Amino acid sequence: MKKNVNIAVVGLGQIGSYLLNELNYKKKDIELKTGKKIKIVAISAKNINKKRKFKINKNIFYKNPLEIIKKAKVDILFEAIGSSDGMSKKIVELSLKNKIHVITPNKALIAKHGDYLSMLAEKNKVNLEFEASVAGGIPILRTIKEGLATNKITKVYGILNGTCNYILSEMETTKDTFSNVLKKAQSLGYAEPGNPKLDLNGYDAFAKIRILSSLSFNKKISKKKCLMEGIENIDYKDIDVTNQLNFRIKLLGITELINNKLFERVHPCLVKKDTYIGNVNGVMNAVIVNGNPVGESILQGEGAGPGATSSALMSDFLSILRGNIKYPFGLPNINRKSVNTYNINNYSNSLYLRLEVRDRPGVLSQITKQLAKRKISVERLIQIPDHKNKTASIIIITHKVNELNAQKCLKSLKSIKNILKDPILIRLF
Amino acid sequence: MKKNVNIAVVGLGQIGSYLLNELNYKKKDIELKTGKKIKIVAISAKNINKKRKFKINKNIFYKNPLEIIKKAKVDILFEAIGSSDGMSKKIVELSLKNKIHVITPNKALIAKHGDYLSMLAEKNKVNLEFEASVAGGIPILRTIKEGLATNKITKVYGILNGTCNYILSEMETTKDTFSNVLKKAQSLGYAEPGNPKLDLNGYDAFAKIRILSSLSFNKKISKKKCLMEGIENIDYKDIDVTNQLNFRIKLLGITELINNKLFERVHPCLVKKDTYIGNVNGVMNAVIVNGNPVGESILQGEGAGPGATSSALMSDFLSILRGNIKYPFGLPNINRKSVNTYNINNYSNSLYLRLEVRDRPGVLSQITKQLAKRKISVERLIQIPDHKNKTASIIIITHKVNELNAQKCLKSLKSIKNILKDPILIRLF
Repeated sequence: MKKNVNIAVVGLGQIGSYLLNELNYKKKDIELKTGKKIKIVAISAKNINKKRKFKINKNIFYKNPLEIIKKAKVDILFEAIGSSDGMSKKIVELSLKNKIHVITPNKALIAKHGDYLSMLAEKNKVNLEFEASVAGGIPILRTIKEGLATNKITKVYGILNGTCNYILSEMETTKDTFSNVLKKAQSLGYAEPGNPKLDLNGYDAFAKIRILSSLSFNKKISKKKCLMEGIENIDYKDIDVTNQLNFRIKLLGITELINNKLFERVHPCLVKKDTYIGNVNGVMNAVIVNGNPVGESILQGEGAGPGATSSALMSDFLSILRGNIKYPFGLPNINRKSVNTYNINNYSNSLYLRLEVRDRPGVLSQITKQLAKRKISVERLIQIPDHKNKTASIIIITHKVNELNAQKCLKSLKSIKNILKDPILIRLF
Repeated sequence: MKKNVNIAVVGLGQIGSYLLNELNYKKKDIELKTGKKIKIVAISAKNINKKRKFKINKNIFYKNPLEIIKKAKVDILFEAIGSSDGMSKKIVELSLKNKIHVITPNKALIAKHGDYLSMLAEKNKVNLEFEASVAGGIPILRTIKEGLATNKITKVYGILNGTCNYILSEMETTKDTFSNVLKKAQSLGYAEPGNPKLDLNGYDAFAKIRILSSLSFNKKISKKKCLMEGIENIDYKDIDVTNQLNFRIKLLGITELINNKLFERVHPCLVKKDTYIGNVNGVMNAVIVNGNPVGESILQGEGAGPGATSSALMSDFLSILRGNIKYPFGLPNINRKSVNTYNINNYSNSLYLRLEVRDRPGVLSQITKQLAKRKISVERLIQIPDHKNKTASIIIITHKVNELNAQKCLKSLKSIKNILKDPILIRLF
């Protein structure tokens, strides 16, 4: 890398703006550490007139980011638009083809097009860095790619979505409803004001799990659906009951190789209150890596927000300035093989079920009959009556049951008219 | 780095032997990830005839490691002897001067000679890597140097000695004495069988703190003494009483810059049971980094043992094979300045004191008089009588008091004849 390095920042939302400020503020520190002089030569955003905390330098502003590649001499480009396709993909693709290093926090882009883009980067001998795409302030990708480089990693799991973790923690603390706490999260900037769906339904965490799997097991990114469930249907009632049973509800992302088959999943879990993961609360993220010979490694930190994200973007930036040309996924693309997917029907687990029922004789018998039919054995059953509405909540914790039987049973339960709502299912971890 | 890379391993104790095995076992994996073919061309140990799990290849064995540099063509050398001076220093020095990359887990060597050796490495354009020197399985140095590269780090602390943490945890669980638990730790291989002193007196953790300070604050390694206390004087009585007060005793290493002055310390601390650090038990290590903008990052993992250490050595190894020439301390030596030391007399803290006294009238008054003289105000006082021996334990938790007054008071207390042993002092965290 030459001494004078030209930078472009594409996308000036919350993250892009924060980053731009950091780049300006830390110019000297960067020169001290790397010996490089950096210059921001191009910025781009959808709307130049949007209210921002800083003044946009119009001389380096581009309405169309693709123009940057033609007109400015850029060495390193930050993509901070954030969609999985469209302009995000176009600008990253064009940059790599023009031998420009790319740094991005865009998990959706990497989870979807990471294999293709990393091939482009390798071919053009430039870096494609995405530390900020998973668990912002926690340098987990670098830890897996470098810190634990020769370990045989068997399992990675954790709390990968700060929004969901905040909502679940806050519901427990305030005893408030899901929708009220969601509103609070939005007002605090923890959840997207417009459309928080991708956080709440598990999609965001799933994209991160895909990236983690690929790095941990040295495989191509899986395209197959596995298990993805969000927290949208969790009620304060679930939090309250599980709390009394000494559990907390956490949205976990989990990836492991079972007999060389990839099992990726994101879903709410009941975790014991006295475990490490049961005590990671609020917007915190945590990732746990099981490897050999290293044993269990735990990393915890702020998972989102412009500060944490910017910290990760800057670490990628310094790595490039220091001249480390690296394979985006830690090894040459030709050595990254496809992976078969684990058949989720074989997944066996204890379940928490909550059924809202009419408080009538025979209802419990209807339910237990269906459980027996699917060979689901009950470890614990709690019935909480609601005399006013003549209804009851029936909470069941089962012994281990395989997913196929569980789903068949759920289907049968749904057809019982005395069950008033779709059953809630949460898996025990 | 050329395609065929020659390796030497000096020191074949627990760590060197494990590493040698890993290097052989993972040759293919390493080639897959880095494209390099590695060959072990030299090994050295004090005693060729010592009983080992593997057979020594006599063709590549050197009795005198310095001969390796003359006779074998080595690209990367692992130093696994482990002393701060002597042959450890000689072989590292000679290797760097001969443009051989060096990897070492030797915290004593780096804490003492790190500045000089890193200058040598920089001058000769080779790497000096020491990830394994601090918290084995936790890639904390890489995280600070790279993952959090542009953060302003304000404080780093943690549990850095697995032996001490194991002993303290085990005393709590088994209610056994310090010396019995130490014997158990030795038989399990957690503590040195011969001389565990460097673990128990805080020296080991202090060397790690010196390395962490230097990396976190981008300064030269401090040579000044600060505060170093071990766990040798802690009795089960202390663990029992503090437990009832909802505390645990942990040996913490702490480093921070206070008004641009370096305050490094290692000493036992009372930590609240419901905190994160209060729940890191057994041989685990944990490091907590406070940085801006990233916030608080926590890393936890196995801190010692040949598996964890080898994982860190191998990560350094792959980093070199990938061709990353790096400054050992993350920035050019010329930019690493000396740092002034914080005056410990100004350090103010709440204290736990345990005094073993004769159970006689007036003793308590003698003690409280001394406390009052030094303006030490008592938050809590517990007296536990031992009728059989006509003695009592007096436990005092003070409000904040500065170190100077605390030490003066301790000195006065020691001269009271009714106090039968040197008082035990543990600081609150």
